[in-house]
Amino acid sequence: MKNMDVLLVSLIACGALLALVFAALTARRVLKFPEGSDRMKKISASIRAGANAYLKRQYRVVLIFFGVMFVILGIMAIAKKLTPYVPFAFLTGGFFSALSGFIGMKIATAANARTANACQEGLNRGLRVAFSAGSVMGFTVVGLGLLDITIWFILLKFVFKLENADITSAMLTFGMGASSMALFARVGGGVFTKAADVGADLVGKVEAGIPEDDPRNPAVIADNVGDNVGDVAGMGADLYESYVGSVISAMALGVAAFKGEIKGMALPLLIAALGVLFSVIGTFFVRTKEGADQKQLLSALSRGTNFSAILIALSSFPLVWFVLGKEYYTLYFAILAGLIAGVLIGKATEYFTSDSYKPTRKLAASSETGSATIIISGLSVGMLSTLLPIVIVAICILVAYFVSGGKTDPGLGLYGIALAAVGMLSTLGITLATDAYGPVADNAGGIAEMAGLDKSVRQRTDALDSLGNTTAATGKGFAIGSAALTALALLANYIEKVGITSEQLSISNPTVLVGLFIGACLPFVFAALTMNSVGRAAQSVVVEVRRQFKEIVGLMEGKAEADYAKCVDLCTRASLKEMVLPTVVAVAAPIIVGLVLGVTGVVGMLAGATATGFLMAVFMSNSGGAWDNAKKYIESGVFGGKGSDNHKAAVVGDTVGDPFKDTSGPAINILIKLLSMVSIVFAGIVMSFSLL
Amino acid sequence: MKNMDVLLVSLIACGALLALVFAALTARRVLKFPEGSDRMKKISASIRAGANAYLKRQYRVVLIFFGVMFVILGIMAIAKKLTPYVPFAFLTGGFFSALSGFIGMKIATAANARTANACQEGLNRGLRVAFSAGSVMGFTVVGLGLLDITIWFILLKFVFKLENADITSAMLTFGMGASSMALFARVGGGVFTKAADVGADLVGKVEAGIPEDDPRNPAVIADNVGDNVGDVAGMGADLYESYVGSVISAMALGVAAFKGEIKGMALPLLIAALGVLFSVIGTFFVRTKEGADQKQLLSALSRGTNFSAILIALSSFPLVWFVLGKEYYTLYFAILAGLIAGVLIGKATEYFTSDSYKPTRKLAASSETGSATIIISGLSVGMLSTLLPIVIVAICILVAYFVSGGKTDPGLGLYGIALAAVGMLSTLGITLATDAYGPVADNAGGIAEMAGLDKSVRQRTDALDSLGNTTAATGKGFAIGSAALTALALLANYIEKVGITSEQLSISNPTVLVGLFIGACLPFVFAALTMNSVGRAAQSVVVEVRRQFKEIVGLMEGKAEADYAKCVDLCTRASLKEMVLPTVVAVAAPIIVGLVLGVTGVVGMLAGATATGFLMAVFMSNSGGAWDNAKKYIESGVFGGKGSDNHKAAVVGDTVGDPFKDTSGPAINILIKLLSMVSIVFAGIVMSFSLL
Repeated sequence: MKNMDVLLVSLIACGALLALVFAALTARRVLKFPEGSDRMKKISASIRAGANAYLKRQYRVVLIFFGVMFVILGIMAIAKKLTPYVPFAFLTGGFFSALSGFIGMKIATAANARTANACQEGLNRGLRVAFSAGSVMGFTVVGLGLLDITIWFILLKFVFKLENADITSAMLTFGMGASSMALFARVGGGVFTKAADVGADLVGKVEAGIPEDDPRNPAVIADNVGDNVGDVAGMGADLYESYVGSVISAMALGVAAFKGEIKGMALPLLIAALGVLFSVIGTFFVRTKEGADQKQLLSALSRGTNFSAILIALSSFPLVWFVLGKEYYTLYFAILAGLIAGVLIGKATEYFTSDSYKPTRKLAASSETGSATIIISGLSVGMLSTLLPIVIVAICILVAYFVSGGKTDPGLGLYGIALAAVGMLSTLGITLATDAYGPVADNAGGIAEMAGLDKSVRQRTDALDSLGNTTAATGKGFAIGSAALTALALLANYIEKVGITSEQLSISNPTVLVGLFIGACLPFVFAALTMNSVGRAAQSVVVEVRRQFKEIVGLMEGKAEADYAKCVDLCTRASLKEMVLPTVVAVAAPIIVGLVLGVTGVVGMLAGATATGFLMAVFMSNSGGAWDNAKKYIESGVFGGKGSDNHKAAVVGDTVGDPFKDTSGPAINILIKLLSMVSIVFAGIVMSFSLL
Repeated sequence: MKNMDVLLVSLIACGALLALVFAALTARRVLKFPEGSDRMKKISASIRAGANAYLKRQYRVVLIFFGVMFVILGIMAIAKKLTPYVPFAFLTGGFFSALSGFIGMKIATAANARTANACQEGLNRGLRVAFSAGSVMGFTVVGLGLLDITIWFILLKFVFKLENADITSAMLTFGMGASSMALFARVGGGVFTKAADVGADLVGKVEAGIPEDDPRNPAVIADNVGDNVGDVAGMGADLYESYVGSVISAMALGVAAFKGEIKGMALPLLIAALGVLFSVIGTFFVRTKEGADQKQLLSALSRGTNFSAILIALSSFPLVWFVLGKEYYTLYFAILAGLIAGVLIGKATEYFTSDSYKPTRKLAASSETGSATIIISGLSVGMLSTLLPIVIVAICILVAYFVSGGKTDPGLGLYGIALAAVGMLSTLGITLATDAYGPVADNAGGIAEMAGLDKSVRQRTDALDSLGNTTAATGKGFAIGSAALTALALLANYIEKVGITSEQLSISNPTVLVGLFIGACLPFVFAALTMNSVGRAAQSVVVEVRRQFKEIVGLMEGKAEADYAKCVDLCTRASLKEMVLPTVVAVAAPIIVGLVLGVTGVVGMLAGATATGFLMAVFMSNSGGAWDNAKKYIESGVFGGKGSDNHKAAVVGDTVGDPFKDTSGPAINILIKLLSMVSIVFAGIVMSFSLL
């Protein structure tokens, strides 16, 4: 048995190593590309400096939070309400999550000018640089995730010699560190990027009438910094959390289902390790001949992700067969259900948000009657778009549960649900690469504009960017779907941990029901708080940009330079201030609900928050995406094109959609998992001191 | 015991009679007021004609639905899946609900010109006419509700000689008739009124630059018709359903809690009958001296409602003591909790939507940076405003459950929750009066404008209207709060009826969980469908109004008359077409979910739909209310006043808010109860044929 453990650890370590080495090699290749002219280097350097400065200050604030929580967890550990590993596991989770974001940001800010420069030579070359940068991020995330798990596994198993059940129970808690770091990164970064974006657009595009990314706009550098700290660093921390959360919760349920046997926890780890291998292989298929058009590029990208997914689908069957034993082979279909559900949710997202389909085209048409009607239509597109994903997830849950034998052994059924999430995220290395290269291309476009490169360069970066929107839809499908499944798996872990009976958890029990109501409300409150944050921060940017236009003589004529750093600093301060309250709410809510309603109330709360959190995340992301693409569709020349009244109406829609899709929506995804993680960590306290 | 039954029936019949006679007398008083000039009579007549024509055609469509459902229920009854009373109970519920709306609309369209005329003499006189019209509607609703219950009680008890449990079980099903009629009325009327409103505003106010209610606007009559068919007839049918639903569900739970004894069902009936008496008394306190200012009028109105509420609060205690017996006196506190919760939710609504408080003022300030920011802020005000009501309802549920002894006898606890809803709605006669007089004042303002009356008249009708907004907030608080509590009571009835164990209902049971997900999604889908309906219908009105402005020579100069009837007809056709799909979805969803997931899935669905339905209803109503009042606040002269850019931004917000607060929000309130009603009626089918 001991040998099996060593074999398992070695395999996982290999997976981690493979991912990290591949990321490092890819990074080296990216850095070999030239950065272009001095002007481009200078712009890229200021974006880099701004992003670095932001992250440094963000980490300082986060450090205080982690310090306080470490002390609280430490006291709880001393009071025997927690195992002594928890405070440290919490710290490492936060550290690796932050590191994922940091490395992603580093490579993205290094690749932006290089992508712009490569686009001077051709679309394909530009894709190579941008996609490679995305790959660095993708593989860093999965590599660090597996590394963290490996280290703790070795420590707990071989140094502290814990039982398997105690190992997973301790590891679950480092999810809390990763989740809270992810929430800070998503909310802070999301507020930064949207405040800068909205501020730059409202004054620059609407009031002063200068084009996007015009160097005369004082908020233009802040806008580009925002893409990096929000869409890159935020996304990195976020998906690190999703990835680790899904694997760990599956491990924990596996140990429970197989009464402490190692095989239950080995399966998700091996799927993850295999996923790394196949993702690496997949990236080699993202190749296309020079002079390829946009459609060929898109098919090159999807070839890579599809290939990895198919390999995982094929190889999981023997894996399940050998690891769990042939009598459990049906659990394979849970993994398969997860994979298929992820793809389908991605397709549904694409249908509702891409301008190739009816919903977004009709949305663009509703600009005919002004901004009010495009807002109403956009909201209803988003709300309606929740139906398909929820039905897909519902079917996935039922299939995963029942094929795994949940009817006779509920523990196995829940394990099946967790495996579906792992299946969905197994190819994260490559799906994240196709997601993360978007912001790099976006930044490259900004640099091309500011450096005054040829118009064809901007066209190519725009093509890459819009390509990224399509592939990002798939990525979002996986992220949202896996969040719901992982949240359910964590819920199951919680129930297992606190040991309440099914009867106590009856939905007709008023504490469960009241918990459900409160939990369902949390995503609404959270969305409101984060939108308000963006609003407040944007307001201050607007004031500053207006001031600069008024006070800096010669700015509009291009004779004087704007004070970019001032705007970056403003966004930094505003977003750091704004990220604290939502995170505190997310951490405090499960503790307060638990202390008042008890563990049954917490279960209700988690179920309610997962349901409406999923719905709100889909609604807000898709409304935002549809508005964005409706605007781009009009810009492509229909309904009057750029500058028409229709376009102005569409810009209003897009502005409303910005905090929807880039701040509130993704943050809610993290929220629902953080709530579960906090509940698990504080279960001991709640059980000892609850009121009802 | 027999004598007790007769006494009970007599008391309830007295309550019904009192309400109906009072309504009739008040109506006669209203009709004695003069209608004013010929021009006013003519305008009022066209509004009346339009509203009548609409309702006639609406009933024709609804009749088809009721016919089809009657046949389906009849077949089910023949197949012994239902008692034979159900198809007939279904019809009467629908009939009385429709009648409530119809009578309300009749009196409102008769009172509009009279109110305008009375406002020529003074504010107080105007209030008297409008409030009397509102009272007619309020007392008609409660009178018909109690009448329906009385008739069925007599039939089932004395003619068919059923047991008490079978009586309430049969009566529950006529809630389905009332709910589906209410949904038709709310959705159809809501689409009509908002399509006309948005159409009139977008072309008239924004494009042609003519003021609101200008007679040159071809959609102006349709707009006024809409107030009557949506805000009056829709609201009447809606609250009939709420009222009857809460009383019946409490009766059913009472019979269950007291093992078939009559006292459990007597209590809610007696509270309702007492509520009628105290509401009548309350209306006499809505008096103020001539020359009273707006503040004094407001206090006159609230004096009436407060007085009724206090009387109910005081008299319920002896009622509980004598009816249930002194050992059950604690159930009184459940009723009290309901009353207090209703008031508090009303206050919370007022805080978030009135321009006397910070949220709406800040919302108005966000118009400084354009329409996008006012939309973002309005959405977040609405989302944030869900927190307080949900906490209030949560506390009310816990208090009602535990004071009623739910800890030892869950049945009693659930009965307590149902009683809280009955307490909340007991004074509906008068709260609805203060709610329903708003649209009458609104219409009066329209007539004053179109008939070219003195400016002071319009100012007075505006004062009445804005007064109505404040009192309506309280009314909404009661409506929304009682909807949630009633839905829970119905859920409890469902669980009781299908007889599943607590264990099967565990939230960790995947069918419950999946049902919860699907249920939580329904309000989102429903909101999307109804908003789309408004959008589509408004679009067609816009096209028609534009056509008339272009084709009718001399219209803008006031030399030719617009073709009002065309717009009314257009709105009628559009709204009738649009009301079918949402209702079909609401009826089909529980059947489909039940057939796939079984009864446990249905319970999950109902819980999920109740939670998010409550949240969405509060969110959408409050966002809409806040936008409306922010616009009015700006119109009062701050932030640049009427015609400024800020005002234009606020108009966009208000236009988005219109379908929010007057179509989707209120319709969701009905949806959650209709889902429960349909589930209860089709429980037999689901239990026999479900898949899982």
